Amino acid sequence: MKIITISREFGSGGRELGKRLADILGYDYYDSEIISAVAKNSGLDAKYVENTLDNHGWHDFPVSFGGTMHSIAYVDASRIDLLVQQKKVIEEIAALGKDCVIIGRNADAILKDLKPFSIFVCADTEAKIKRCRARAREDEKLTDRELKRKMKEIDKARARTRDFLTGSEWGQCKSYHLTVNTGDWDMKALASAVAAFAEKWFEEQKN
Amino acid sequence: MKIITISREFGSGGRELGKRLADILGYDYYDSEIISAVAKNSGLDAKYVENTLDNHGWHDFPVSFGGTMHSIAYVDASRIDLLVQQKKVIEEIAALGKDCVIIGRNADAILKDLKPFSIFVCADTEAKIKRCRARAREDEKLTDRELKRKMKEIDKARARTRDFLTGSEWGQCKSYHLTVNTGDWDMKALASAVAAFAEKWFEEQKN
Repeated sequence: MKIITISREFGSGGRELGKRLADILGYDYYDSEIISAVAKNSGLDAKYVENTLDNHGWHDFPVSFGGTMHSIAYVDASRIDLLVQQKKVIEEIAALGKDCVIIGRNADAILKDLKPFSIFVCADTEAKIKRCRARAREDEKLTDRELKRKMKEIDKARARTRDFLTGSEWGQCKSYHLTVNTGDWDMKALASAVAAFAEKWFEEQKN
Repeated sequence: MKIITISREFGSGGRELGKRLADILGYDYYDSEIISAVAKNSGLDAKYVENTLDNHGWHDFPVSFGGTMHSIAYVDASRIDLLVQQKKVIEEIAALGKDCVIIGRNADAILKDLKPFSIFVCADTEAKIKRCRARAREDEKLTDRELKRKMKEIDKARARTRDFLTGSEWGQCKSYHLTVNTGDWDMKALASAVAAFAEKWFEEQKN
């Protein structure tokens, strides 16, 4: 079984890259399907599950230490429950034994014994803003500054969750097999190049 | 003209990857040739030029600020001369107009108007130690701890030089087109996968 995992910066196009990889390679594709399964299993509203798992749930608790203010990050207990359920869903997906692409959710760390090919997707801030603008809903009119803050917050939450769950550093090249910058690419051409690279990697693992 | 630049962590195998890429693609290969040219142009000893450019030249100057000790990094004036000469050599290489692979020396930033395909090469500390051990000369018997310190120092110097010359962050995925982790690969297979990826990128640039 071949598993490709995609971690990504918000706005970098990682989701589109993953979808295209699944199409090119004929793999199953898992993204919001995971949220739906967690919602179904927990009996909670899908939107609440998505918000809690993907974007929120981290809080800063201010403490004074040695005369300086610091903050300790903590996470809601309800979120930990959902993270455990999400892990179970990802393990169930892998247990199906079918080739697949999984977006986010630290699937690379959760499934590490199955040797997934792990990709991190990044891009320049300018490229990410352009991408977010092109995809924004009509009702979502953020200024550049608000958009930058949103990107930063979401990526920070992702980094914290990864650190909390896996101890491996989010966005650090050593934590993944391949890191691609989507900046200078047409996404279709990039997906084809990454698909060929991943196939060589899976071939290599057989030897 | 197609230029591939390789930045790398010490011990990650970036040099070997670059050499293999040049062989596979039939490109010229530049590494220590750059040092020799700088030595020749400056009339200085090649070993001195190599040491000054590659590993040394940064100093920490301790300063007290707000009651706490900090350090300011500075670089010898003689090193700045050599960096300028090295930049000239790299520009002369590019002026030859031939496809090439250039190892290190911030060639991606120096030649950015020529749109090189820029690669960063990394690996886990354990994998790098293993690699260094396999390649060490008989007279170079460092302990793991000494080796780790050496790797850290060289990478720190590389990061500082990049920051000083280019303002772009060394080792950050956004600073390169592709970042590869050599850890789980046979180097020959990896080089073939990266070569195919680079060829797709150059094809893409034509469109």
